[in-house]
Amino acid sequence: MERWQSLADAPVYSHLLELASRPVDLTAPGTLTQARIEQYCCSAAGFALLYATERINDETLAALQQLADQCQLIEQFRQMRRGAIMNRIHGYPSEERQVLHTACRDLFAGPPAEPLASKQAELELARLKIFLEDLENGNLVTGQGLFFDTMIHIGIGGSDLGPRSVYEALRAYGRAGRRVYFISNVDPDDAAAVLRQVNLATTLVNVVSKSGSTLETLTNETLIRKAFELEGLDSARHFIAVTGEGSPMDNPVNYLRSFYMFDYIGGRYSATSMVGAVMLGFGLGFDHLLEFLAGASMMDQAAEEPDLQQNIPLLLAMLGIWNHNFLGFSTVAVLPYSQALHRFAAHLQQCDMESNGKSVSRYGEQLTIKTGPILWGEPGTNGQHAFYQLLHQGTEIVPVEFIGFRHNQYQQDLPIAGSTSQQKLVANLLAQSLALAAGQKNANPNKHFPGNRPNLILMADRLTPRVMGALLALYEAKIVFQGFCWNINSFDQEGVQLGKELAGRVLGLMRGERGKGCVEYSPENALLKMAGLEKTG
Amino acid sequence: MERWQSLADAPVYSHLLELASRPVDLTAPGTLTQARIEQYCCSAAGFALLYATERINDETLAALQQLADQCQLIEQFRQMRRGAIMNRIHGYPSEERQVLHTACRDLFAGPPAEPLASKQAELELARLKIFLEDLENGNLVTGQGLFFDTMIHIGIGGSDLGPRSVYEALRAYGRAGRRVYFISNVDPDDAAAVLRQVNLATTLVNVVSKSGSTLETLTNETLIRKAFELEGLDSARHFIAVTGEGSPMDNPVNYLRSFYMFDYIGGRYSATSMVGAVMLGFGLGFDHLLEFLAGASMMDQAAEEPDLQQNIPLLLAMLGIWNHNFLGFSTVAVLPYSQALHRFAAHLQQCDMESNGKSVSRYGEQLTIKTGPILWGEPGTNGQHAFYQLLHQGTEIVPVEFIGFRHNQYQQDLPIAGSTSQQKLVANLLAQSLALAAGQKNANPNKHFPGNRPNLILMADRLTPRVMGALLALYEAKIVFQGFCWNINSFDQEGVQLGKELAGRVLGLMRGERGKGCVEYSPENALLKMAGLEKTG
Repeated sequence: MERWQSLADAPVYSHLLELASRPVDLTAPGTLTQARIEQYCCSAAGFALLYATERINDETLAALQQLADQCQLIEQFRQMRRGAIMNRIHGYPSEERQVLHTACRDLFAGPPAEPLASKQAELELARLKIFLEDLENGNLVTGQGLFFDTMIHIGIGGSDLGPRSVYEALRAYGRAGRRVYFISNVDPDDAAAVLRQVNLATTLVNVVSKSGSTLETLTNETLIRKAFELEGLDSARHFIAVTGEGSPMDNPVNYLRSFYMFDYIGGRYSATSMVGAVMLGFGLGFDHLLEFLAGASMMDQAAEEPDLQQNIPLLLAMLGIWNHNFLGFSTVAVLPYSQALHRFAAHLQQCDMESNGKSVSRYGEQLTIKTGPILWGEPGTNGQHAFYQLLHQGTEIVPVEFIGFRHNQYQQDLPIAGSTSQQKLVANLLAQSLALAAGQKNANPNKHFPGNRPNLILMADRLTPRVMGALLALYEAKIVFQGFCWNINSFDQEGVQLGKELAGRVLGLMRGERGKGCVEYSPENALLKMAGLEKTG
Repeated sequence: MERWQSLADAPVYSHLLELASRPVDLTAPGTLTQARIEQYCCSAAGFALLYATERINDETLAALQQLADQCQLIEQFRQMRRGAIMNRIHGYPSEERQVLHTACRDLFAGPPAEPLASKQAELELARLKIFLEDLENGNLVTGQGLFFDTMIHIGIGGSDLGPRSVYEALRAYGRAGRRVYFISNVDPDDAAAVLRQVNLATTLVNVVSKSGSTLETLTNETLIRKAFELEGLDSARHFIAVTGEGSPMDNPVNYLRSFYMFDYIGGRYSATSMVGAVMLGFGLGFDHLLEFLAGASMMDQAAEEPDLQQNIPLLLAMLGIWNHNFLGFSTVAVLPYSQALHRFAAHLQQCDMESNGKSVSRYGEQLTIKTGPILWGEPGTNGQHAFYQLLHQGTEIVPVEFIGFRHNQYQQDLPIAGSTSQQKLVANLLAQSLALAAGQKNANPNKHFPGNRPNLILMADRLTPRVMGALLALYEAKIVFQGFCWNINSFDQEGVQLGKELAGRVLGLMRGERGKGCVEYSPENALLKMAGLEKTG
């Protein structure tokens, strides 16, 4: 079997440990020079990455380049895009799948890296285009002959977070007269709150589940179908599906259309597949959808650049490993200075933590190094009035990834007190980056800022569909690079199984089912009793 | 000066360190017994706290009780509620204020702990009641004689997160026909997105800023006033304010009404003051507002109980310190199994991290112990399909605080496959708690769950206004107890000043202002250039 090098076995590992014992002191006078700030800047695919405010220097970067080379990160990424079986644990039963989310958008730059998968993506896009045109020109209308103006997107996890965060980010580009709502949680109040707001008579329901068997999604689908029935509407004329070919949901009796996703695309990487595309095509229009895909494709190409300092996703990955594995910080905060990105961190929480929250290598060995960090974040400037106190003066150090844009989305802004809101926004972003890095001495210990809090800035021109596609793909590539470097399988999620099994047992107990017909002790029983849940329902 | 004992000086500290070297193994057979689960359960003020799934035993609890006693946590909490100057750094210039957010709701249980502050709260509530009645009975209408049906709440940080998360939590109790929107971010797209959705002609704008000088809030106020002007509406007839008495915003020329908040209430603790009350009174009705306050008051009373095992906020605080300072975990996740609480973690991020993200004691000394953890979270079951992989199998261990309810808010639920959605929801909560604690062995290392991941469950009957008040106050008290134990000032936020100053300098540079008339080097200049921001605006 092929055997990739991991972080811990890479020859440069001990050198990096040694460098980490004496990282650059960003608070020392003369450190944050103009030359440093200009040098530690990389541009690609519409983004600039400014990283002079990380605790690195040329020596660190050279070592991180060696690490990337020794672990063959670019080579692995290239193989992944070209269809290698990357979702695998060698020597144990595992999913044994290709990893081809990049193929969904590999439609804009010459021959695709994996032609078969890209062909499938192209066919689904063509079917989607026809569907959207049918909605547009009145070929597909409600039983009462009305145009559909609302979509309820039902999905959970990867079938919700990525698509939802992209839609929220691009609302400014929404098609006039169309609205999209989301239901994900099995909490019945999630569906109830949406039902209060929509007119079912003109609503399309898009049910998204790869397996066609996700508990929460099927439950919510049933709840919503009931709501249609109660209003005397035929739900079969209002429901569409995104699912695996041949799944229980791939059934024209129940759905106007079924769009397909494929088993070589993991849920958390599926926003550019039909999982996101159907809803985005409806809500934003087909042209904006294509722009979004093109942006992602552009970043995928850029991620194959071998030179660390010219490759934004790779830099983001390696700086993250430096902060996490060598400087020892447990978390990373992603702080977009854009209200439209208010759900982006929630998507990344899944994409990153479900991919890289692992303790076993691709060869089934217990790891001795730390893998994925805890990722969290909220938009600035809001966060400045919330948790930034801890970022500046707390005892936990949090590496920060700022995201900003030179221009805002809507054409509404005003100069107030000599600057526009957008200028105030980005000025705050830059100021926070410097304040965290450089700190400030003060004789009053309560007003002292220690500095040396590593951070970087991702900057683009404006959050358009294309830029959003690039941003999404940038983080996907970062996550994949880090997983390769830790030598883990970033594409499975065995850690969610035990909870599912136990939930089934608890539900059985709530229904009064007891093993072998007699009441026996179990921790589930005791918890149910103490939680006061024996008598619910 | 009075001198409180801190965690690090408490005689029991070394004993706790020793206990932490051999914490209870929750995965050992026979540990999670029925007796244990029944014993480690506490009920108060409408909540049950189940904590058998923490790595503690009777010895740990006895030591934590000693810690609470040696640090006089209950005594300090009592003094705080009775008006002691708790917002202070001894020996250095500091805010020197009382801390009386509890007085806002100390109106339901006999003589208030601090009568003057509660009297002020009562007067403001009486003024609010009249205002709401005027809206109701048509005494106060728009220039066109229309009823106000919409409120835009403008605030940031404490003037936004607490109120917003409570409103979101209680939407199910919203007054029919009324809607509330929020604008917080200086990002102009935040305001633009709201303006797209409202009819200004029937909109009240509630501007909330204690100082009357918050940059983001004043900027957004100006943007929204312009929008009124553009529609030919007189904004003075649509705006109200919540601010400090005598602030620039306390001005009847510009506002229909000004409601007051007082300097003894910190922003992040202000949701039960007029900061939250005006919007909640409008959106939910005055009676629901009173219920919310009564719930908070009930929990404040319960927090004075000296017996650790009978005091939910104190237990939450001490178990948090056990996990953070003794077992060494950097973060804590708050995971509500209720979609309505989807912004509660964002509120707690401010309340907790701005309060306790400090490195200096109340006596100006550099601390040698860790203070506030990083707090994060999203609702379950959504999180189960997102980041729970890392919780179960990652190399970072995350203590979890689950929050659940026996019944849902809306009366819409259906049995599907033998159980209701609400049953599925709480079954999942209990299952996750057990799975994290007990783990599960498997010969396939990729399917092995190590367990011993500490967690607890907060359970209440239903998320009503009263229960939400209690939940809010529970976490406020937890945070305050922890701050007392670390011996820090949980009520100031000096760590946000440097960023503000630097933002002013960056804005000056963007406007072309250069120090002393000549172009000099500064890191701000260099960052502006590399971010491509020299030419914006």
